[in-house]
Amino acid sequence: MRLGILTGGGDCPGLNAALRAAVRHGDTERGGSFVGFRYGWRGVMEGLAEEFTIEDVRGILPRGGTVLGTSGTQPHRVDGGVDRVREALAVHRLDGFVVIGGEGTIGAASQMLDVPVIGVPKTIDNDIRGTDASIGFQTAAQIATDLIDRLYSTAESHRRVMVCEVMGRHAGWIGYTAGVATGADVIVLPEHPFDPELISRRVREVIAIRRPFSIVVVSEGAVPIPGAMAMPDYALDENGFPRLGGIGAVLAGEIGRRTGFETRVTVLGHVQRGGSPVAFDRVLATRLARAAVDAAAEGRWGTLVGTHAGEIELTPIEDVAAGSRTVPETLWRIPEVLCT
Amino acid sequence: MRLGILTGGGDCPGLNAALRAAVRHGDTERGGSFVGFRYGWRGVMEGLAEEFTIEDVRGILPRGGTVLGTSGTQPHRVDGGVDRVREALAVHRLDGFVVIGGEGTIGAASQMLDVPVIGVPKTIDNDIRGTDASIGFQTAAQIATDLIDRLYSTAESHRRVMVCEVMGRHAGWIGYTAGVATGADVIVLPEHPFDPELISRRVREVIAIRRPFSIVVVSEGAVPIPGAMAMPDYALDENGFPRLGGIGAVLAGEIGRRTGFETRVTVLGHVQRGGSPVAFDRVLATRLARAAVDAAAEGRWGTLVGTHAGEIELTPIEDVAAGSRTVPETLWRIPEVLCT
Amino acid sequence: MRLGILTGGGDCPGLNAALRAAVRHGDTERGGSFVGFRYGWRGVMEGLAEEFTIEDVRGILPRGGTVLGTSGTQPHRVDGGVDRVREALAVHRLDGFVVIGGEGTIGAASQMLDVPVIGVPKTIDNDIRGTDASIGFQTAAQIATDLIDRLYSTAESHRRVMVCEVMGRHAGWIGYTAGVATGADVIVLPEHPFDPELISRRVREVIAIRRPFSIVVVSEGAVPIPGAMAMPDYALDENGFPRLGGIGAVLAGEIGRRTGFETRVTVLGHVQRGGSPVAFDRVLATRLARAAVDAAAEGRWGTLVGTHAGEIELTPIEDVAAGSRTVPETLWRIPEVLCT
Amino acid sequence: MRLGILTGGGDCPGLNAALRAAVRHGDTERGGSFVGFRYGWRGVMEGLAEEFTIEDVRGILPRGGTVLGTSGTQPHRVDGGVDRVREALAVHRLDGFVVIGGEGTIGAASQMLDVPVIGVPKTIDNDIRGTDASIGFQTAAQIATDLIDRLYSTAESHRRVMVCEVMGRHAGWIGYTAGVATGADVIVLPEHPFDPELISRRVREVIAIRRPFSIVVVSEGAVPIPGAMAMPDYALDENGFPRLGGIGAVLAGEIGRRTGFETRVTVLGHVQRGGSPVAFDRVLATRLARAAVDAAAEGRWGTLVGTHAGEIELTPIEDVAAGSRTVPETLWRIPEVLCT
Repeated sequence: MRLGILTGGGDCPGLNAALRAAVRHGDTERGGSFVGFRYGWRGVMEGLAEEFTIEDVRGILPRGGTVLGTSGTQPHRVDGGVDRVREALAVHRLDGFVVIGGEGTIGAASQMLDVPVIGVPKTIDNDIRGTDASIGFQTAAQIATDLIDRLYSTAESHRRVMVCEVMGRHAGWIGYTAGVATGADVIVLPEHPFDPELISRRVREVIAIRRPFSIVVVSEGAVPIPGAMAMPDYALDENGFPRLGGIGAVLAGEIGRRTGFETRVTVLGHVQRGGSPVAFDRVLATRLARAAVDAAAEGRWGTLVGTHAGEIELTPIEDVAAGSRTVPETLWRIPEVLCT
Repeated sequence: MRLGILTGGGDCPGLNAALRAAVRHGDTERGGSFVGFRYGWRGVMEGLAEEFTIEDVRGILPRGGTVLGTSGTQPHRVDGGVDRVREALAVHRLDGFVVIGGEGTIGAASQMLDVPVIGVPKTIDNDIRGTDASIGFQTAAQIATDLIDRLYSTAESHRRVMVCEVMGRHAGWIGYTAGVATGADVIVLPEHPFDPELISRRVREVIAIRRPFSIVVVSEGAVPIPGAMAMPDYALDENGFPRLGGIGAVLAGEIGRRTGFETRVTVLGHVQRGGSPVAFDRVLATRLARAAVDAAAEGRWGTLVGTHAGEIELTPIEDVAAGSRTVPETLWRIPEVLCT
Repeated sequence: MRLGILTGGGDCPGLNAALRAAVRHGDTERGGSFVGFRYGWRGVMEGLAEEFTIEDVRGILPRGGTVLGTSGTQPHRVDGGVDRVREALAVHRLDGFVVIGGEGTIGAASQMLDVPVIGVPKTIDNDIRGTDASIGFQTAAQIATDLIDRLYSTAESHRRVMVCEVMGRHAGWIGYTAGVATGADVIVLPEHPFDPELISRRVREVIAIRRPFSIVVVSEGAVPIPGAMAMPDYALDENGFPRLGGIGAVLAGEIGRRTGFETRVTVLGHVQRGGSPVAFDRVLATRLARAAVDAAAEGRWGTLVGTHAGEIELTPIEDVAAGSRTVPETLWRIPEVLCT
Repeated sequence: MRLGILTGGGDCPGLNAALRAAVRHGDTERGGSFVGFRYGWRGVMEGLAEEFTIEDVRGILPRGGTVLGTSGTQPHRVDGGVDRVREALAVHRLDGFVVIGGEGTIGAASQMLDVPVIGVPKTIDNDIRGTDASIGFQTAAQIATDLIDRLYSTAESHRRVMVCEVMGRHAGWIGYTAGVATGADVIVLPEHPFDPELISRRVREVIAIRRPFSIVVVSEGAVPIPGAMAMPDYALDENGFPRLGGIGAVLAGEIGRRTGFETRVTVLGHVQRGGSPVAFDRVLATRLARAAVDAAAEGRWGTLVGTHAGEIELTPIEDVAAGSRTVPETLWRIPEVLCT
């Protein structure tokens, strides 16, 4: 068995743990060999390939990022891209690819189903279908939790409203988890448009009754209900989507203006995706990568390797690519922190 | 609705998060009130009770330990103990108890099934049936992982074998998780008797081929195969069970003697059960405690509140108490780290 | 002995440790009692005062923030403010004040030298004269270091330039420390105006020769050399001073434009001043606070308690207030990271 | 300039940061080259040498341990050892050695003063003269502090006495720092023989008056006053010195027996010397290593590079080797925690 392996999309903690587990398991127990492609699908198309051996993965388990590098390139969006993927398969005499990636990277695989691929889910946003958990999410949620814990000191000492923007463009898993884990007063998710007046009312109520400060957690992809408030230019990128840090700043401004309380914003940004993975992600990455190599050995191409209630489960990549996994209403509808 | 609430068994991170969530949810959304009993079932029997309100749980979410205190007392093992539990129910006009505990505390509930109880699973050992995850385990596994990461520095710099003993008397979840998460060469679990000669052989092999040092993780409850090695007196407690730190020291001695490599032991001990819970445990504790209050409101007495594939699930306490949840062979049988 | 005690200025880790040590030492060993004023000098002027005892400081040593609250109020800038401070002294029968604060709070003391004050230096900016180290700085530098470590993962995986803005309006101690501690390629401090072209040249050079990504650390108060680049409105506050996050965003834009490399900015912001203090700050806070009580007992009013080479040293508050302590050229002039 | 470089003695966090800074500074700014010797002085005597370049130190700044490896070998204690050191000097055409080490390694240098050496102090015990701070100590103290913080949860929840043994054979800096930083009730240091009865009395007093549990921190090298208690065989090594974990276990037994309180011991052990260094140690290591290369370039052989009040200072190695730096009485004599 000879497999190509790559990491695609945004980097996250646990990619190296997955690479190490795949190579070690494939080599030691499955008698296979690996070709590592650099920078995700881009490396496949551009021939950035090298033998990838146990020596290359030694000592990388606890390290953030990915030794193979990554990119968001999707072959089917590049002229002749899919053909070049097929060529790489032939040139390197590969049985198929193990692809560690998120929505975009796995989605690309679903657009070239004749290319034999096993997908391994990774994303700090946790929004991939076909698995209970994706590599990187738990670490990102932990980092956000640790940092929001720190904001409590300042909120309390200065009696301020602290607004903290966390990652999550379409799915609010980080915001939900870090918000619940830190006891935030308000959690604003992309899953549900927000009304700045309701949020401000909740903040006033908290400060009147509960404690002389307030913590608001907001996902970068949260959007106000139509007409509720203006979104200034600087909060949007060139495509009209919220810019990193945009909604946090705007919401803090709204709350400050409407409540009269001193309000500050903190945008956690890229620190949420870097550094050493938590134990949960290391074990998840190890298990999923081993299972991916097993699935390849058994010819289960076109599937994503996930976990369900602790067990490994394979799901067709087409089903995975058909939609994303957002925070269900049963979870986010917590009367104490949702302003509806 | 009026509920008694208590925490029993060994303390662990997340107990305070559970107490806070139960009281806030019960009070705000369910119109209930709480009586807090100190030191687990002991406080019920001895009348160590007080009103337990939202004021009492303010700010405790991120803190380790339990503001109610805990003990391992089991009413059915005390003369007249169960009667006193029934009396407490009457005296405080309780509809029932929310009991946050492990095997012993929940087991006690299964011995007095006429007492209305909802169980919430907590244990760093992760060995309670009826749930995918118990409060405290993920934090303990994370602490062990962080500390074993640190042992790598010394192992590598001095070319030593480092043996690390982690908690786990009957179930090896911490050892399995921290061992896989840190890339240990050998993981020794209570689930499978170990042969010190096989372990020593693996260590020699690792040092010959892979890296000039070795990491061995061993659960406190691991036992050698019969006749393989002597267990000195100091490794056992007065009941003949392995003492904390016993098996680690003995195994390190055996490996050192058999391989000739410089070998050191570290016993992580009590630090594994203290301090602020990780985000995973905070969210788990919050969800389980809220669900426990809901279950009480719906009269689902005699059940344990657990999670299955991310969803809340109730299991009869008798089923939970019928056995414990150990690491399944499908997980621990990793050829690279198991010496069989 | 009866002392007023307060914390003023921006909150930081270690304030609670200082409050605890002062009260415990004053009570147990010096037979004194304390009046705690809330919200810094504001509480003195507004009569927000209460007995402050050992019970009030129990368990607060490891906690971030300040249980007394804080504000930036300076009595001599308020009509009749200094008179009200003198009144508080009489009303509460105080021998004097122990004032834990930074430039502004200590500076206020230097404007009313007839009021008996002992100053204890705290500031994450580390810019107070009369001491080698101020409470809170080492924790802030540690947080920034941990977070910049995390940015390496993304920089490396995506081959990006990551610009990280840290706190420091007039003194670059956090930037210097975290920049050196993480191996940044460029460190931009308020002590030395920067040339965006030199920085961009260094970044190009690093990527050409050393590694395929680059890390730039910039203090919030850094300013470009005159004429080198435009400072857009959104980077400045209403007084024309750089806004938190302003210089980071502008500099990232400049580097991206001049080098053509993908560049991202992260603004650490308020997380740098919250949460549990590192051991260094806990010990420093404990020692300084004890020494402040001793100084009060000995009538050494009008002095700041600091450390010099590990020993306690007292400095007249007027000398302390005469200027601030910036990063000396002997430290920041590191050819490898300074672009001059 | 051509320098040999090595790390000797017990490993500690910050050695890699020092190696990196020396090589980068020596190469880039001083036009020098380096020979790296493996395993401390042992590698010099045995010819375990290789060119050591900027490539070899890339990315190692934040990592624990030492890429050169280490040992406790002292040339003057080996037959012909010093001659072999002189030979290595000639064979590799070295101007001298930069030696990063503790008492033993620097002490060895003082026994062969004709060999040109610049010493850089590292030791988690912090007991080297000629410097305010040694590489590794602040990290070790931080780790101990974090872990003792965790022990509070269990102490409080179970109302126990927790005894925590930390490193420190002859100097109690870790115990002093972590004990003060965590608010321990008793701190037992090697600097002062302890009376178990006084300690037990203090513990009883704390529990009677202050809080229903107690925390005792003890250095591994602490010794009882003569005749106060028996030291069982298992607490001593073959030379009659306290074994790691010995004094902790014995003292916990004594306290438990004398007070009747449930008492537990935790021995932190090797985790105190591993893992990523704190920011303080990274900056210290960087500054000292750069200064060592400068000192070599200026021919200041036979000196140790230290810091005094933040400034670099050179001290003759003979003076350094003349004694060790213990915790002064002015620091450890804290009436609240010392039992005298």
